Amino acid sequence: IIESVSDFPIIKNDDVIIDAIWGIGLSRPIENFVGDFIARINQSKAMILSIDIPSGLPVVPNFKIDKSKIVQADCTYTFELPKLSFLLPQTGNYVGDFTIVPIGLDSDFIKKQKTDYYYIEKNYIKHILNKRMKFSHKGSYGHALIIAGSLGKIGAAVLSARGCLKSGVGLLTVQVPGCGYDILQESVPESMVIKDDGENYIESIVDIDKYSSIGIGPGIDQNKQTELLLLSMLDNYDKSVVIDADAINIISKNKHLINKIPEHSILTPHPGEFKRLVGDYGQDMDRLANLRHFSIKNNLYVILKGAHTAIGCPDGKIIFNSTGNPGMATAGSGDVLTGIITAFLSQGYSPEDASVLGVYFHGLSGDIAQEKVGEVSLNASDIVKYIPDAFKLF
Amino acid sequence: IIESVSDFPIIKNDDVIIDAIWGIGLSRPIENFVGDFIARINQSKAMILSIDIPSGLPVVPNFKIDKSKIVQADCTYTFELPKLSFLLPQTGNYVGDFTIVPIGLDSDFIKKQKTDYYYIEKNYIKHILNKRMKFSHKGSYGHALIIAGSLGKIGAAVLSARGCLKSGVGLLTVQVPGCGYDILQESVPESMVIKDDGENYIESIVDIDKYSSIGIGPGIDQNKQTELLLLSMLDNYDKSVVIDADAINIISKNKHLINKIPEHSILTPHPGEFKRLVGDYGQDMDRLANLRHFSIKNNLYVILKGAHTAIGCPDGKIIFNSTGNPGMATAGSGDVLTGIITAFLSQGYSPEDASVLGVYFHGLSGDIAQEKVGEVSLNASDIVKYIPDAFKLF
Amino acid sequence: IIESVSDFPIIKNDDVIIDAIWGIGLSRPIENFVGDFIARINQSKAMILSIDIPSGLPVVPNFKIDKSKIVQADCTYTFELPKLSFLLPQTGNYVGDFTIVPIGLDSDFIKKQKTDYYYIEKNYIKHILNKRMKFSHKGSYGHALIIAGSLGKIGAAVLSARGCLKSGVGLLTVQVPGCGYDILQESVPESMVIKDDGENYIESIVDIDKYSSIGIGPGIDQNKQTELLLLSMLDNYDKSVVIDADAINIISKNKHLINKIPEHSILTPHPGEFKRLVGDYGQDMDRLANLRHFSIKNNLYVILKGAHTAIGCPDGKIIFNSTGNPGMATAGSGDVLTGIITAFLSQGYSPEDASVLGVYFHGLSGDIAQEKVGEVSLNASDIVKYIPDAFKLF
Amino acid sequence: IIESVSDFPIIKNDDVIIDAIWGIGLSRPIENFVGDFIARINQSKAMILSIDIPSGLPVVPNFKIDKSKIVQADCTYTFELPKLSFLLPQTGNYVGDFTIVPIGLDSDFIKKQKTDYYYIEKNYIKHILNKRMKFSHKGSYGHALIIAGSLGKIGAAVLSARGCLKSGVGLLTVQVPGCGYDILQESVPESMVIKDDGENYIESIVDIDKYSSIGIGPGIDQNKQTELLLLSMLDNYDKSVVIDADAINIISKNKHLINKIPEHSILTPHPGEFKRLVGDYGQDMDRLANLRHFSIKNNLYVILKGAHTAIGCPDGKIIFNSTGNPGMATAGSGDVLTGIITAFLSQGYSPEDASVLGVYFHGLSGDIAQEKVGEVSLNASDIVKYIPDAFKLF
Repeated sequence: IIESVSDFPIIKNDDVIIDAIWGIGLSRPIENFVGDFIARINQSKAMILSIDIPSGLPVVPNFKIDKSKIVQADCTYTFELPKLSFLLPQTGNYVGDFTIVPIGLDSDFIKKQKTDYYYIEKNYIKHILNKRMKFSHKGSYGHALIIAGSLGKIGAAVLSARGCLKSGVGLLTVQVPGCGYDILQESVPESMVIKDDGENYIESIVDIDKYSSIGIGPGIDQNKQTELLLLSMLDNYDKSVVIDADAINIISKNKHLINKIPEHSILTPHPGEFKRLVGDYGQDMDRLANLRHFSIKNNLYVILKGAHTAIGCPDGKIIFNSTGNPGMATAGSGDVLTGIITAFLSQGYSPEDASVLGVYFHGLSGDIAQEKVGEVSLNASDIVKYIPDAFKLF
Repeated sequence: IIESVSDFPIIKNDDVIIDAIWGIGLSRPIENFVGDFIARINQSKAMILSIDIPSGLPVVPNFKIDKSKIVQADCTYTFELPKLSFLLPQTGNYVGDFTIVPIGLDSDFIKKQKTDYYYIEKNYIKHILNKRMKFSHKGSYGHALIIAGSLGKIGAAVLSARGCLKSGVGLLTVQVPGCGYDILQESVPESMVIKDDGENYIESIVDIDKYSSIGIGPGIDQNKQTELLLLSMLDNYDKSVVIDADAINIISKNKHLINKIPEHSILTPHPGEFKRLVGDYGQDMDRLANLRHFSIKNNLYVILKGAHTAIGCPDGKIIFNSTGNPGMATAGSGDVLTGIITAFLSQGYSPEDASVLGVYFHGLSGDIAQEKVGEVSLNASDIVKYIPDAFKLF
Repeated sequence: IIESVSDFPIIKNDDVIIDAIWGIGLSRPIENFVGDFIARINQSKAMILSIDIPSGLPVVPNFKIDKSKIVQADCTYTFELPKLSFLLPQTGNYVGDFTIVPIGLDSDFIKKQKTDYYYIEKNYIKHILNKRMKFSHKGSYGHALIIAGSLGKIGAAVLSARGCLKSGVGLLTVQVPGCGYDILQESVPESMVIKDDGENYIESIVDIDKYSSIGIGPGIDQNKQTELLLLSMLDNYDKSVVIDADAINIISKNKHLINKIPEHSILTPHPGEFKRLVGDYGQDMDRLANLRHFSIKNNLYVILKGAHTAIGCPDGKIIFNSTGNPGMATAGSGDVLTGIITAFLSQGYSPEDASVLGVYFHGLSGDIAQEKVGEVSLNASDIVKYIPDAFKLF
Repeated sequence: IIESVSDFPIIKNDDVIIDAIWGIGLSRPIENFVGDFIARINQSKAMILSIDIPSGLPVVPNFKIDKSKIVQADCTYTFELPKLSFLLPQTGNYVGDFTIVPIGLDSDFIKKQKTDYYYIEKNYIKHILNKRMKFSHKGSYGHALIIAGSLGKIGAAVLSARGCLKSGVGLLTVQVPGCGYDILQESVPESMVIKDDGENYIESIVDIDKYSSIGIGPGIDQNKQTELLLLSMLDNYDKSVVIDADAINIISKNKHLINKIPEHSILTPHPGEFKRLVGDYGQDMDRLANLRHFSIKNNLYVILKGAHTAIGCPDGKIIFNSTGNPGMATAGSGDVLTGIITAFLSQGYSPEDASVLGVYFHGLSGDIAQEKVGEVSLNASDIVKYIPDAFKLF
């Protein structure tokens, strides 16, 4: 079925078009003659299968994309590695579902290629994931603190706590406002709860030194008192923390807080929160540049959530996630992620490993959930429910 | 087994009577001689299998039904399409279980037949149901608001919220009275909650513009304050809303509110609520006439719930549902439906498609629940539980 | 394997003793010579399998039992029907597990035998259980009211409500004291809740006429206010009600209330409650006599709970249940039963049928639960969980 | 694969080293020449399989361990019985996973060996576990009281109650502070609840005589009022109780309380709590000596939790558990254990049997949970969830 043709590189059948104009479009827009050809392909109702990369799509999207001159594939069989453009919103949709096909390239050769872009593979996860020791005890896996919730958004704390507990933490304490106390205790019996003096918003500064890791942000709102609590926490805690949602928004409104964040902390913005943090951008490549720049400058990990979540690292690397699906674009999905990453930090993983493990297992749990409940019905609780199945694959 | 006989059109065996007086009874009551024959059939203990339509039963029940002159079938194999009388309470029971059998009629011929009556088929659902896109985010699926619950009826809000979340909404906020706050937050962690200033009844007007869709009514009671809230909502929201239960009852008591309802909104009355809204009626055909008249006149969709739920459309169409079972005649079933339809509206479906998808998936989930838990034990929570399995059939 | 021997009626092998002294012990204690023989059998470590009835055990225990003169079987294969002594605590343990074996007796002959004792068989349940009709609605299955719970015993209301909902009721309202309001609304979303003015005990008299059936008693305690509520309810409701637990205890303390109970109501005492109601008794047969006497005199159904629950009927019949197991001897099991029977009454079943269906499906659900979770771990919630599977066997 | 060699007792292949220096290291450290050899083995990347015991590891660790002179096995096939050093933290890790292999030793010979150390085997559990009787009732299985929880730690009470209910108790009452009332009633409907007068900490003395067994401690904190309650309970209850967590810590702070504990009560410390109770210790053998000494002196059972939980008995026996896994090193795991043991006491088991059954079924449930959800995701609720499956193996 799959073959490449040199002259007119398209084979047409009743229902499948094999698109294999291999190599074109790497560095500049496609030329007119071929562009017309592509337009005709896209107008057809045939299923379109691209080889290596849809024709006209750049490997790295360094120029303005002209939609009419790129093959809109239904699926792509790509060689050895996904191309950068596959992983970005403005170009990723041209690819359809992609599958990586090994073609016998020398893996040492691939590793020697200098790159800032990484793609998380299952073998790497196997490599960094630790096994529990027989004579360990719950203290061996740390005591995490999650600071979350406000009036009307206590569910964020629940989901975050559940994600954390299912990811191997030894002990968990959740700090919620008074209005969330009963809810947490009922919903998550394994968790201890600090009932904040604030009835509707968290505001109390507790003894944070004893916690192995802290996750802050899900559903906390941007109340002034909460802002002060966040400031105090950043001032007094010296291990890396996970900062999510409204904690990011508070920092975006008070940019001077950025350099109070403990080094190698992990921020988990979605695109809207990311823009508030680093300013607006145009093309995807600008977005990546901003991500790298911000991460290097502030010595932070920034997990930019979305399809193929991108982790910006203090050393300039950008690591793309390989798991996840659009069913996870649903309320509370990010809260679960915060809990998972906080659990990994608590167990002693480095911030980079915690970030990588976090996004990978979050996405993998979501992929299992997608299989079980489908994309439409996938809720954040389903992601939590299938975390054990994700870990059991390792 | 199935054949038609011209003279005395009944074949009798030990335990099965094949009823195939094909075509009789289309437009007027059956004659005496055959009527006696039918009476004898009904007195027998044999299993009665009708071909196309039980003898004596009109295709369209335009005249008064005489029970003794219609074959009471145990099951009916009908050709190509269900007949209108199969779908209505006063005549539908004569049919027993019916199965549609294709007999090779030209489908173009069927489509050309002018009709106001439609029957939802699986292929049509496939046609209108969208797929989630890879680079979408939770905002792509809208932010729904459900206004529901009162003292003693908070479960209605819970069930509605759960139905909504399982049907693809991106974000969900539920407005409940103070007494329902904890209950919602614990029961539905994915949902945000607006805690109304009213302790027992909802009464607060919130900023509704930001919501992609609104569902109002489940369990709200008919308190004066709630009435004012409903009025304000109808006055200020300009997208179509889903109006259920006591929200319909409030409108029925204040008929001037009808023309304040945003055009193409969706009302979901059960028969009792429908009568309060449009006045009493005698025969099923009067009921359908009222449904069509009301829908056209007020430019609304009216989903009249029951076996073969009928959707009255502003353009005069009446669309009958093909899914569902009597186990769904249970507390809270309608609350789940409101949540499902609100979720579809939130995702950008037209009010007609949201109505059709809503009743179809609600019924299909109930049919799967019936298989799993049986009709007697089927509760509204079971409908919610099997929504994912319903979507997975598509 | 099974045979009867006339002389020395015992066959001994290495590990199985077949006990087939058929017919002995019907009406008087066993004689000395055989008694010694039986003592030796019981001392052996062999497995003992009795035919029809363990030797020495009376069919009807009309005389004082001498333990040493009755074969203690591990299992019994009995002919056609269980004997009365199998079903009673003081004699039932001699039988071990029993299996009914048909031996070709004429069933008409069996039916003609005059008896007051009945044993519920699956075929009888099939006969009295109705099917749901296609064009029915939730009103067709009635609106039940359960009055239950007090400070510290709200779980009883929850379990009763869940049992009721899983047994086919159309609508359910639960009346609980103020301290139970949140708990009910969260635990049972399908149920409406009346929040009693009493914070810790129910005391408010509500409009009870509109309910199709009422169940009262689980966890209500014996507070004075609750006593008045019960009195008022008995005075004003004219359909049969289900009376359980502390509602029975209140009546036992105020015996004049007995003749205020609506006729054909159903009482569901466990043995302790039963004694408080009718006075103490010595032998099992006295207990049955008391049960029959009380039921006839007061025109009530009395469900005396235990292994082989016995239903005393106003017409003098005593009906023994055939389902259930010792894992059901656990907290809350009776609360579930009250809910189930209330659901059957609500659907229009006669009090006798509701009692028979109630104990049968309660026991059958418990038997399925025993298979799934074992006897030790069986909790009342497990009985509820497997109600659907019980109904699916019909 | 397995053989012993006399000269140079190591066989090396590509990936497996069979370590069979049988018998060495029983009573003194290994000699230099062999020590070097062992060091080389440990440096290799081969899989190491030890026969009977890793070379260099003492059977009883009576001397200081030199890590470099003991084979670090991946797995050990040991003959007939596990050796003491396998079961202790400082030496157990050298063994890897161990499997017991019968080699035909005379079991009478083994039983005649005088020892204080016992290892719980499945057959022994079968021997001591009772069957439920047909005509039993819920009273037959006792009424347990669990005193647990404080502000922020109500989940401990929930988990303990659930563990108790799943382990065969007849009736259960849980005493919690006011802030835990709703949570308990919602989370555990089968349980009755005593709402303490203390809002945040338990402090009320209730009528404890009527309870068949008492478990106290999970999540109670060390408040002064709670201390007084504990004192009163120890003074007034004369059956053995289960004492856990902060109840142990309170006793450790008030050592004079130790001899107020009812004889044959059961304490369930983790290592940290144990140290507070008996003082610090150096080597594992000191720990065992402390455990035996404390148990004998105070006539108590002390369950020292960890891998191979050790039960110190008043008669000097130390019984090691054979079930459990490191996934159980997680928040709330101990609370579940307290509930399980309290349930066994309530059913009339002796304190020794209750302790043995408790740790065994707790560990076995955890082992099944490990299979189902994996070690990382294993939470205390999972242990509860699989208790039924554990009992079904018997």
